[in-house]
Amino acid sequence: MTVWLVGAGPGDPGLITVRGQALVRSCDVLIHDRLVSPELVAQASGALIVSRDGRAQGEVNRMLVELGRKGLEVVRLKGGDPFVYGRGGEEAIALAEAGVPFEVVPGVSSLAAVPAAAGIPLTHRGVSAGVRVYSGRTAEASGETVLVFMGLHELARVCDDLVAEGFDPCTPAAVISRGTLPGQEVVVAELGQLAAAAEGIEAPALVVVGEVVSLRDRLLAGVLQESAV
Amino acid sequence: MTVWLVGAGPGDPGLITVRGQALVRSCDVLIHDRLVSPELVAQASGALIVSRDGRAQGEVNRMLVELGRKGLEVVRLKGGDPFVYGRGGEEAIALAEAGVPFEVVPGVSSLAAVPAAAGIPLTHRGVSAGVRVYSGRTAEASGETVLVFMGLHELARVCDDLVAEGFDPCTPAAVISRGTLPGQEVVVAELGQLAAAAEGIEAPALVVVGEVVSLRDRLLAGVLQESAV
Repeated sequence: MTVWLVGAGPGDPGLITVRGQALVRSCDVLIHDRLVSPELVAQASGALIVSRDGRAQGEVNRMLVELGRKGLEVVRLKGGDPFVYGRGGEEAIALAEAGVPFEVVPGVSSLAAVPAAAGIPLTHRGVSAGVRVYSGRTAEASGETVLVFMGLHELARVCDDLVAEGFDPCTPAAVISRGTLPGQEVVVAELGQLAAAAEGIEAPALVVVGEVVSLRDRLLAGVLQESAV
Repeated sequence: MTVWLVGAGPGDPGLITVRGQALVRSCDVLIHDRLVSPELVAQASGALIVSRDGRAQGEVNRMLVELGRKGLEVVRLKGGDPFVYGRGGEEAIALAEAGVPFEVVPGVSSLAAVPAAAGIPLTHRGVSAGVRVYSGRTAEASGETVLVFMGLHELARVCDDLVAEGFDPCTPAAVISRGTLPGQEVVVAELGQLAAAAEGIEAPALVVVGEVVSLRDRLLAGVLQESAV
């Protein structure tokens, strides 16, 4: 009935999520990236297995929409996390615009897991308090997404600092409280209005600033909230 | 026999990894963060359960070392990922310096999962090609870690760009190929030498630049490679 965009994790098949593994094991169709572990693909024992390899992104989007419309349970298994250089947003928008219900099941991104496997912590008190991530393949033209952890207590200062640094006060921004949990709350506002709009929202919360926030409306039609297990 | 630093994921108990859940279920002692899901803690049914709440980081480090030395199987269950604002590096170094074997089991960080749950992809073609992450709580004094996805083909240019941007060519840097998989390879060099040192290394690979790379020697004594499941 639904298409799931599932993160397979960084490579080791034990690093898929419990929920992701359950979906792989029960799906009707599995469409997987080339780099996804063969051990994970083999777990979809009752499913039709399709490799994404050699297909254009538009073709993958169309396949997901068509299979979803047939009422099949489709798992789109992607390396790492679907929304970190995974083009999951493009698939999500295609499904949302076609009215096919879908859900994103995040995965362990290589981002922290690969350095960890090499003995390198991404952040470390007194050594590194932040991370900048980019792709060697993309042109500089595209924008950047800013995430602020533990930014709620000083949200007005955090937003002022970004504006002082050159961010347009009209940049779309969000505060997400209790993300992935049943009590999740999301406040969306322009950067210049965010602190006022998020008044009273509770920690833990993550602040997101950047044009990607404006994709939310296109995605949201189809996003089902992740259900608690 | 070992201490595991396990990421519990962003909140939803289904978002722990398969490997993390198996360790929670079989451990002798579980030391958990306050924000970890009660459903996950309850799965450690045979274990002594200890909350980290109200304990200073030094006390937690000492507990891990003492319990590890007793030969107990200890899971230190942390919200999100242990190495993304999780202070996992401090615990890892304490264990490594005490000669207690340990292993890091990465988790789904809130970083991508929480925006995803709110319908926001972190990166999106033509909209955002990069992510900057920082904490609202830390002073600006600390450095930043740079990660480059898909940077291997143009590694010399990527390194030159960072130096042109102001990075000291002596900054510690690494290329990690096939991270978390049995064939994992790690090349460590100063930023100015990285492209030459990584000659011949194979994709997929992640580039890491920053002082955190120098923590590797302190961590590595104790880090056991994640075994394939």
